[in-house]
Amino acid sequence: MIIDKPYAIGVDVGGTNTVFGIVDKRGQIIKSGSIKTGKHAEIKDFIDELSGALDTLINQVGTKDEIKGIGVGAPNGNFFTGSIEFAPNLRWKGVIPFVEMMEERIGIPVALTNDANAAAIGEMTYGAAIGMKDFIVVTLGTGVGSGIVVNGKLVYGHDGFAGELGHVIMRRSNGRLCGCGRTGCLEAYSSATGLARTAREYLDMRPNENSKLRTMPIEDITSKDVFDAALDGDEMAKEVFQFTGEILGEAFADFVAFSSPEAIILFGGLANAGDLIMKPIRESMEKNLLNIYKNKIKLLFSELKESDAAVLGASALGWEVK
Amino acid sequence: MIIDKPYAIGVDVGGTNTVFGIVDKRGQIIKSGSIKTGKHAEIKDFIDELSGALDTLINQVGTKDEIKGIGVGAPNGNFFTGSIEFAPNLRWKGVIPFVEMMEERIGIPVALTNDANAAAIGEMTYGAAIGMKDFIVVTLGTGVGSGIVVNGKLVYGHDGFAGELGHVIMRRSNGRLCGCGRTGCLEAYSSATGLARTAREYLDMRPNENSKLRTMPIEDITSKDVFDAALDGDEMAKEVFQFTGEILGEAFADFVAFSSPEAIILFGGLANAGDLIMKPIRESMEKNLLNIYKNKIKLLFSELKESDAAVLGASALGWEVK
Repeated sequence: MIIDKPYAIGVDVGGTNTVFGIVDKRGQIIKSGSIKTGKHAEIKDFIDELSGALDTLINQVGTKDEIKGIGVGAPNGNFFTGSIEFAPNLRWKGVIPFVEMMEERIGIPVALTNDANAAAIGEMTYGAAIGMKDFIVVTLGTGVGSGIVVNGKLVYGHDGFAGELGHVIMRRSNGRLCGCGRTGCLEAYSSATGLARTAREYLDMRPNENSKLRTMPIEDITSKDVFDAALDGDEMAKEVFQFTGEILGEAFADFVAFSSPEAIILFGGLANAGDLIMKPIRESMEKNLLNIYKNKIKLLFSELKESDAAVLGASALGWEVK
Repeated sequence: MIIDKPYAIGVDVGGTNTVFGIVDKRGQIIKSGSIKTGKHAEIKDFIDELSGALDTLINQVGTKDEIKGIGVGAPNGNFFTGSIEFAPNLRWKGVIPFVEMMEERIGIPVALTNDANAAAIGEMTYGAAIGMKDFIVVTLGTGVGSGIVVNGKLVYGHDGFAGELGHVIMRRSNGRLCGCGRTGCLEAYSSATGLARTAREYLDMRPNENSKLRTMPIEDITSKDVFDAALDGDEMAKEVFQFTGEILGEAFADFVAFSSPEAIILFGGLANAGDLIMKPIRESMEKNLLNIYKNKIKLLFSELKESDAAVLGASALGWEVK
C-alpha cells in the first residue's frame, strides 16, 4: 500500500540562523520557524532544540505519519554519508552524523545535502527549472556555490562533494587569495564579498576617480553599497558589476562545455542585482562559448521567493527521502 | 520474451579510415574490417559500402537476428539526433542523418555518439572503468576529447553535445589559437599536436639550448619525435612533456570540482607516453585540487587494446540500442 503523505519538512542550517518549515505538495510553506544555529556548543543540544521545535509545528498540522521526510540543507552537508563534514562556519567541528542523530531523535526519515544542492532541487521542484533535466544553479552569496543537475538527477559525484564550481580557477597568475587557501578561484571574484573587494581595489587603484563609494569607510563597503551606487548611476560601481559579471560569464562558458545544460540559474544575494549582473554575464558567456553552444543556453534568475527559498529547497529533498 | 542476442557491432568513423567489428559479450572482436572514409563524396554511397561490408561479416557469424545493435562513434556524432553535425574533418558537410540512413539500409538498430563518448562507454563495459559510476575519459589525440559518466550514465547534456573538455579555457591572456577559433583552449596545449607545437616553440625561443629535436626540420616534429627524444634523455623533450602534463593537471583539478569522479582515464596517442605524461599530470592536479578532493582521484590509463579500442567503444553503445 502506498501512503501518499501530504507534507515534507525543509530545514536550512545557516551560519547564524536555522530556519525550517512544513511544506505541502504545491510548495506552500504552511508552518515555519527558526532557531539560532550557534546557541549550542554541542550538536546533540542543537538537534534537541530543532526537533522539539519541529514536533511543535507538526502537532499544529497533524501527526508525524503525515510527513514524508525531512530535507536538510547545511554547509558541507554530504548526501551520501548524511554527515556535515568539516564546515568552517559552524561551531561543531569534524564530522557530524547529522542524519543519524536527527532520525533517532525525531523518528522521521531525514536526508542531508549542501545548501546549493538544496537550491537546485528546489528550483527543479517548485521554481525556474520545473520540467528541466539538465541545468546548473549557481548561488552568489558570501561564497559561490553550485548545484548541478544532469539527466534529471543531482550530481553528487563519487564522494558526495561534486559541484564546487565556486572553486574553479579563473586567474592562474596573480589570482586573488580565496578562503579555500588557493588563489584565483571564481568565488574570490564573483561572490558578494568578491564584488565588494573589487570595489575596494578600484577605489585604491584609481585615487583620482570620483565615486559615491568614497563617502563611506572603504573597509565597510558591502555588495549592497555597490549595488545602491550603481543604481544611482555611479560609473565605478557599474564597472564593478561589469567586471564581476564578465568573470562569471567566462566561468559559465567552461561549465557549458562540461554538461551542456538547458539553463544556468542564478540564486542568492547578487542575483537580486538583476540586469546589472546578468547583462555582463550574458555578453561574456556568449563571447566565450564554443560555437556549438552559442545562443542555446538560457540564463535565468531563481523563481523561489528569497525568504522561502532555502526552506523550499531543503523540503524538496524531503519528498525524495526513502 | 527476451531474446538474448549474442553480438553487437562497433563502427568507428575516423577522418581517414572507418573500422568496424562484430563483438561478443566478453568484449572479443570476432570479425573485423575497414573501409576508406573519404572515398565517397556522397554519404549515401558510404553507407552502402559500409552496410555491404557489415552484411558480409554478419553472414560469416550467423544472421542479423543475432546482432543486438550497431554502435557508431563519429566526429560530432550526436546521440540525441542520430546525426553527424558539421564535422570539420569529414567530406560530408552540414547535418547527416546517419542513424536513419543506416537503419533503413541495414535493418538493425543503430546508435551514434562521438568518439570520446564511445571510448567512455567502452571503458565502462570492457576496460578500466568496469564497476565505476562516476569517471571521465580524456582522449589525447590530434585533439582533446572527453566522455563524462555520472551516476553510471554518459552525460549528453540538453543538446547531445556535453563533454567538450578540450575546449575549456586554460590561458585567458595570450592564449594559443585553437582549431575552434578561440584562444587558450586545453586542446591547443595538450593534444598531440599541441605538444609538438610546444616543442617547436621551445626550439625557437631557446636557440642556444641543445636538443636532439634540432636534428630534424622543425616543421616536421611530431609528438612521437618528442616522445622518442624524451625517452632518450633529451632534457628539452622531457620539459615539453612536463609543460603539457602540468596544464592537463590544472584542467583536471577543475573537472573534479564539477563532477567529483572516482577516476580520470587517459585514452589515445599521448596516453602511450606513460609516466612521462602521467607524472606531471598527477603532481599538477594534486597541487591544484581543492582540499576536499586531494588524494582521492584515481588517474588511470585506458585498458582497451589500442587497435581495438575504437571498435570496442562503439560496440558497447551497440548493446544499449533500443
